[in-house]
Amino acid sequence: MGTINVWETTDIRFPTSLELDGSDAMNPDPDYSAAYVSFGDSQADLIGHASVFTIGRGNDVQVAALEALRPYVMGRDLEELLSDMGALYKELTGDSQLRWLGPEKGVMHMAIGAVVNALWDIKAKQAEKPLWELLADMDPEDLCGLIDFRYLSGALIPSEALDFFRFAAQGKQERKAALRAEGYPAYTTSPGWLGYSDEKLARLCREAIAEGFGRIKLKVGANKADDVRRLRIAREACGEGFPIAVDANQRWEITEAIDWIRKLEPFGIDWVEEPTSPDDVAGHKAIASAVAPVRVSTGEHMASRVIARQLLESGAVSLLQIDSARVAGVNENIAILALAAKFGIPVFPHAGGVGLCEAVQHLAFFDFVALSGLKEDRAIEYVDHLHEHYVDPVRVEQGRYWPTDTPGNSQEILAPTREGFLFPGGSEWGS
Amino acid sequence: MGTINVWETTDIRFPTSLELDGSDAMNPDPDYSAAYVSFGDSQADLIGHASVFTIGRGNDVQVAALEALRPYVMGRDLEELLSDMGALYKELTGDSQLRWLGPEKGVMHMAIGAVVNALWDIKAKQAEKPLWELLADMDPEDLCGLIDFRYLSGALIPSEALDFFRFAAQGKQERKAALRAEGYPAYTTSPGWLGYSDEKLARLCREAIAEGFGRIKLKVGANKADDVRRLRIAREACGEGFPIAVDANQRWEITEAIDWIRKLEPFGIDWVEEPTSPDDVAGHKAIASAVAPVRVSTGEHMASRVIARQLLESGAVSLLQIDSARVAGVNENIAILALAAKFGIPVFPHAGGVGLCEAVQHLAFFDFVALSGLKEDRAIEYVDHLHEHYVDPVRVEQGRYWPTDTPGNSQEILAPTREGFLFPGGSEWGS
Repeated sequence: MGTINVWETTDIRFPTSLELDGSDAMNPDPDYSAAYVSFGDSQADLIGHASVFTIGRGNDVQVAALEALRPYVMGRDLEELLSDMGALYKELTGDSQLRWLGPEKGVMHMAIGAVVNALWDIKAKQAEKPLWELLADMDPEDLCGLIDFRYLSGALIPSEALDFFRFAAQGKQERKAALRAEGYPAYTTSPGWLGYSDEKLARLCREAIAEGFGRIKLKVGANKADDVRRLRIAREACGEGFPIAVDANQRWEITEAIDWIRKLEPFGIDWVEEPTSPDDVAGHKAIASAVAPVRVSTGEHMASRVIARQLLESGAVSLLQIDSARVAGVNENIAILALAAKFGIPVFPHAGGVGLCEAVQHLAFFDFVALSGLKEDRAIEYVDHLHEHYVDPVRVEQGRYWPTDTPGNSQEILAPTREGFLFPGGSEWGS
Repeated sequence: MGTINVWETTDIRFPTSLELDGSDAMNPDPDYSAAYVSFGDSQADLIGHASVFTIGRGNDVQVAALEALRPYVMGRDLEELLSDMGALYKELTGDSQLRWLGPEKGVMHMAIGAVVNALWDIKAKQAEKPLWELLADMDPEDLCGLIDFRYLSGALIPSEALDFFRFAAQGKQERKAALRAEGYPAYTTSPGWLGYSDEKLARLCREAIAEGFGRIKLKVGANKADDVRRLRIAREACGEGFPIAVDANQRWEITEAIDWIRKLEPFGIDWVEEPTSPDDVAGHKAIASAVAPVRVSTGEHMASRVIARQLLESGAVSLLQIDSARVAGVNENIAILALAAKFGIPVFPHAGGVGLCEAVQHLAFFDFVALSGLKEDRAIEYVDHLHEHYVDPVRVEQGRYWPTDTPGNSQEILAPTREGFLFPGGSEWGS
């Protein structure tokens, strides 16, 4: 291995708004997009890939943020970077000038996440393991070294994290085998987009159950009467006791959320996701206290481990999403998973979009094998959409994610897609 | 007036790191920079200017975010935009695709702030008033219309904000006259940068007092023994009872902050600014409770009114900074000022950098004349640096800001500066 001599960024967009796939109360017309980065050592044939997921406009800004990181990566000694997988992450999030643009939130933070994730792709390819297994096979001490404990302020200290990883090291092989034999639970949001008709909703609910999914999620929050009607349809289609979560995508004020959730509660809801602003820890706490025992959750827009810590410490959430492309990559997500384990809160990773299922499965598998040790009352979100554009697409069958054995992080997009959906120059955009 | 037919963005950077001006515990070598935007109607000779302040690397990303807003501005009917100064702000922060990049935080949010601020520059120039006076002269109903009450979740409701503005409408003319006659208190951070020697610190303290400043601020947080020594020097130079604030620029964990502040407290500190992560509302609350009656503050990195609301509502801060370029411009800052008024918390605007003094003075003057009605226990930060690059630089004399009468928001940078400090092509960058 030598120095990093390849770097490329690409603005990839899919015109998904034409079909209203992915429409919710806050995001009526997303064009699922990837601000995509590839870098590595071409002589050693080690190239890593990752992306930031966006929903259209602004994907160019996200690419510009990736480009701002090029000087931190190009020309660097690859072996040195790979020898301490906490180092580049801490260097980038700690860079005093870049830090001003967040700190640790928004466009710059997500770009750092993609660069960190691409380095993990290289690391996994070099080790000839899928990312989840590479992580699961790491020593507890090395896992601890991935975490930036700054601003965790005692909620999770290094010795405690080490204890978690050491405890979980027992039984790793059994859980690996169980993962390969049983898969990992998935749930599907496909039936529940706001843009779908009642008939399509009912049909997709029945199909989800027939396909083996043990849980579905419905988008809510645009119109209360519509939500009540749609939830009734879904409940009838799924039957009593079948877990149905709802997702408001940040649409409500605190009292509005409480009132709305009480209207939905009689139909049985597994959790309420993103009831209000993702930055409003106090708001989530107020809502959760008022609607208990209904479970409140958030996370797909959770900017950092600092917000995660406050949500968990204050009891504002009964479960938590993580997102592979929102925070500073694998490293910060391991911190968040460790925090969730500390507070005994189950994690239901956010996925869908483009590439999010491919990316986040690795974190959930790692959590099961080498951290929480649990997959009960846990599931990865699944949407059957755009997977055909990936070199190593997720395998979801019988309502379960099945672990990949392909080396890497599964985030590489097929070359023809990268060309065809290049924005605005690609052939799919009419150029 | 016709349509907006001019749009230009510029990456302007000053090589301030060479002098260690602006060095603090988190930002050792800033290159003060402006991601600058100008737009307007050239036929009507109405061009607005504003910028996002950054500290160097990443200023190009900020410019890219401004460019992403070009299609929302170019070709728009200017009179229509100016007729409802809440509309463009709400359109941009509410844009479903751009919103994904925050929401309401980081690079995209700050870019929206600059565009909103530049529109205010046009509005003030058209009215032939300085921005502060334009705002102060607005009707209470119109001021209310500027605020986005979303996510304030009852902490401030429209009727309540209206009551504040109506109450403050009484006595506006007297306070305008008082502002012009007495100025507005300033405090200076110039003595307290970490990079300065003890001798320079003592000399600058004495000079600050001789110049009439009633308060100074020292940077702390890198080394406890150094901080104790420097605070002792400053106390001796300033005398008993003279207000000295300290600013840790986010360097501490919660318990570390409490311990450190207790070491500094015997020297008398007016407030402790940014003790930890700006996203850690719970942390600020824990620190404030432990070190009371020492006052805790934050705000220059406060991402939005949602964070401000939680800080104020939970009693996590005894005073608050606002920053002209961190949130979505004048509109969101008026929401934050109204929240501060509601909770009876004084605001000490963050300034310094490049252009921050010029921009934020308008908000403080407005607050005094038409919102809180107070300038006791309030002061605008001041650093005597880079003002010579502005068309309408701040006037700070006798330790006070004196209000400008020049129409606009005072954010226009001189054309030779925009050319010379253009990065990387300008003559000052050796090109």
